[in-house]
Amino acid sequence: MISVKPLSKKHSASIQTRIDNKTKPLGALGALEPLALQLALLAKQRAELINTAGVDRQNVKMANEEFASKISLNQPSMLVFAGDHGINEENLSIAPSAVTKQMVLNFLHGGAAINCFCQTSAIALTVVDCGILQPINDNENRAQTDSQTLKANFIEQRLGAGTNNFSVSAAMTLAQLKQGFDYADKLVAKQIAQGSDILLLGEMGIANTSSAAALMSALTSYNVEECVGRGTGITDEQLQQKVVLIKQALSRIGATNFSEKSLDNEAVLNILAELGGFEIVQMVAAIIAAAAMSVPVVIDGFIVTVAALVAIRLNENVANYLIFSHVSEEKAHQALLEELLGAQNFTQHHTQPLLNLGLRLGEGTGAALAFGLIKSAASFYNDMASFESAGVTV
Amino acid sequence: MISVKPLSKKHSASIQTRIDNKTKPLGALGALEPLALQLALLAKQRAELINTAGVDRQNVKMANEEFASKISLNQPSMLVFAGDHGINEENLSIAPSAVTKQMVLNFLHGGAAINCFCQTSAIALTVVDCGILQPINDNENRAQTDSQTLKANFIEQRLGAGTNNFSVSAAMTLAQLKQGFDYADKLVAKQIAQGSDILLLGEMGIANTSSAAALMSALTSYNVEECVGRGTGITDEQLQQKVVLIKQALSRIGATNFSEKSLDNEAVLNILAELGGFEIVQMVAAIIAAAAMSVPVVIDGFIVTVAALVAIRLNENVANYLIFSHVSEEKAHQALLEELLGAQNFTQHHTQPLLNLGLRLGEGTGAALAFGLIKSAASFYNDMASFESAGVTV
Repeated sequence: MISVKPLSKKHSASIQTRIDNKTKPLGALGALEPLALQLALLAKQRAELINTAGVDRQNVKMANEEFASKISLNQPSMLVFAGDHGINEENLSIAPSAVTKQMVLNFLHGGAAINCFCQTSAIALTVVDCGILQPINDNENRAQTDSQTLKANFIEQRLGAGTNNFSVSAAMTLAQLKQGFDYADKLVAKQIAQGSDILLLGEMGIANTSSAAALMSALTSYNVEECVGRGTGITDEQLQQKVVLIKQALSRIGATNFSEKSLDNEAVLNILAELGGFEIVQMVAAIIAAAAMSVPVVIDGFIVTVAALVAIRLNENVANYLIFSHVSEEKAHQALLEELLGAQNFTQHHTQPLLNLGLRLGEGTGAALAFGLIKSAASFYNDMASFESAGVTV
Repeated sequence: MISVKPLSKKHSASIQTRIDNKTKPLGALGALEPLALQLALLAKQRAELINTAGVDRQNVKMANEEFASKISLNQPSMLVFAGDHGINEENLSIAPSAVTKQMVLNFLHGGAAINCFCQTSAIALTVVDCGILQPINDNENRAQTDSQTLKANFIEQRLGAGTNNFSVSAAMTLAQLKQGFDYADKLVAKQIAQGSDILLLGEMGIANTSSAAALMSALTSYNVEECVGRGTGITDEQLQQKVVLIKQALSRIGATNFSEKSLDNEAVLNILAELGGFEIVQMVAAIIAAAAMSVPVVIDGFIVTVAALVAIRLNENVANYLIFSHVSEEKAHQALLEELLGAQNFTQHHTQPLLNLGLRLGEGTGAALAFGLIKSAASFYNDMASFESAGVTV
């Protein structure tokens, strides 16, 4: 497991003073102020990390000294992790598993919402096949579309042809999980080495809210009913069945009283292998790998937030490296965010994610939509005048 | 008064069908979906307007046929209207009126939050002096700054050297108000003729929350206590004095029972002259002028929202041409937004502004921050694949 240090807050006071001296009333930029504080703390720590550890970083446009005084968000990179879920044989979703691949192809051809939002915010989009049912072949990937600029990069890091049905057996083996961690570690290291200063995460996987709900229930004090939702729009009957099957799985692995005790990393990884998805596993590892390099990670909706939860259970220090982009319509998302945002503890303002737009799509759409706000927070921190420099006498 | 037609909804069904056929579950893009519907309705109506009325529009990069099927948001233009307020002699703000000019210079030199956010979202920024205490001279405007790209354009449309103290006499004459409407009409017509497809409004004026609160109280059923707030951070004593002076003004003009009767336009304009500010007057006119040309107007915080209220009281059709960007920390803002958003009635989703970040700065900052979401709504409407075109079988 990659080690993640606590985010150093030794520069908090000087950063806060810089924010408070900007030409605006104290706190007038609301949630963007603690966000700027977080980004600036990460930037300073990253500069020190690069200086002391000699971390390899190609194509760096900004000298390390600048890193320490400015927030750099060059080459934002959206990684959308896709995987299929054995539990979908139980008819827990509005769609058959084949739709996961259809949507991956839609990403690759530039036709999905995430393509549009990444293009609008100049975010590079990469789709990672973590184990959808049928792999993408070259002809499918190369299919022509109208807009080349909307297309996505494609990376194959398959752990299998969909997970097993976790209501009856482990979703994957520990060997598959370990392979997923290795894949994601290397992918993130490469992205950062190539110059990405911020990562955004998204996902695609029919039925992956079931896996996410099971993980949330196993790793928090929320009961199953509080962790399940309608995903992209299932019926009451399907919702009921979702609860029954998740309870069955939790009972199978003896997870009904996990919240009573502190889980060690071996136990958390075991739960992840039992209940997780191939895309969730790789997101957990990606989050930890980025945090270890002091690179901020923008968290999307419910599924990615559950990956963040698992990462935090593996190392609580991870929390302060995350930016929670939005709260979705999936009811469990709000509950989980309250727990995770509370753990960040930057300031009292920082108690909500950036957006609340009633989204329930996934794909990284909320993260991509919030990126403009994150850039704006960096921009005011970097470029706004102080009272003194502007000659404003308030 | 420029006439504003009701927004035609004859294409609503076809637009909604196009949105519903995009590769996503129904409604999964939340608040962005009714926003796309609104933008598309405006685009279609604008195309028809240009075709039938021969409206002059230079530098058009998109043919009218495209206008009708795509949402174009070329050359977004942020207009920040600035003015000073006689009532500030009563010490109702945290700052002296001289700070209005200092902040205008900060805008012109590129040092304010609005400069940063406009640059981040590629919005052209223009500052309009509607009547600050002391005019800007050329030397002040030309002063050098580090970043040329952060600087703002400057336009002088002064109606006086600050308004009169409205607690004791009319803030301005009807002749000044009429001059303000003429200035703003021409400015907006020019912006649109030069190719701006969307306008964003912001303001600067020490003590202008007092004027805004007085207008809100006169034009809605909310009482004065519900309309006042702490602006950028006044004391309890100042807040109390703000209430007393606004009540005095409302009593002076016999406005205590306005909400009981329907006000004609002459009465509304009279109230605006009595209680308004030079920047508020020009924003009211700018909103109406843009709506008349079917150009969407992005509304910022409390002061701009009050300008929208006045414009809607002058012509209720204006409501559907507005995009409410955010709800601020000023408590009256939430109350006013509920009333105005309710009047739009696009869909049940459209009951909140786009952002809720705890901002309390003004300047147009909330509008600029929301622009990325507005672009994203246009982008998914314009470019996202349909189920059929993408081969997705949900």
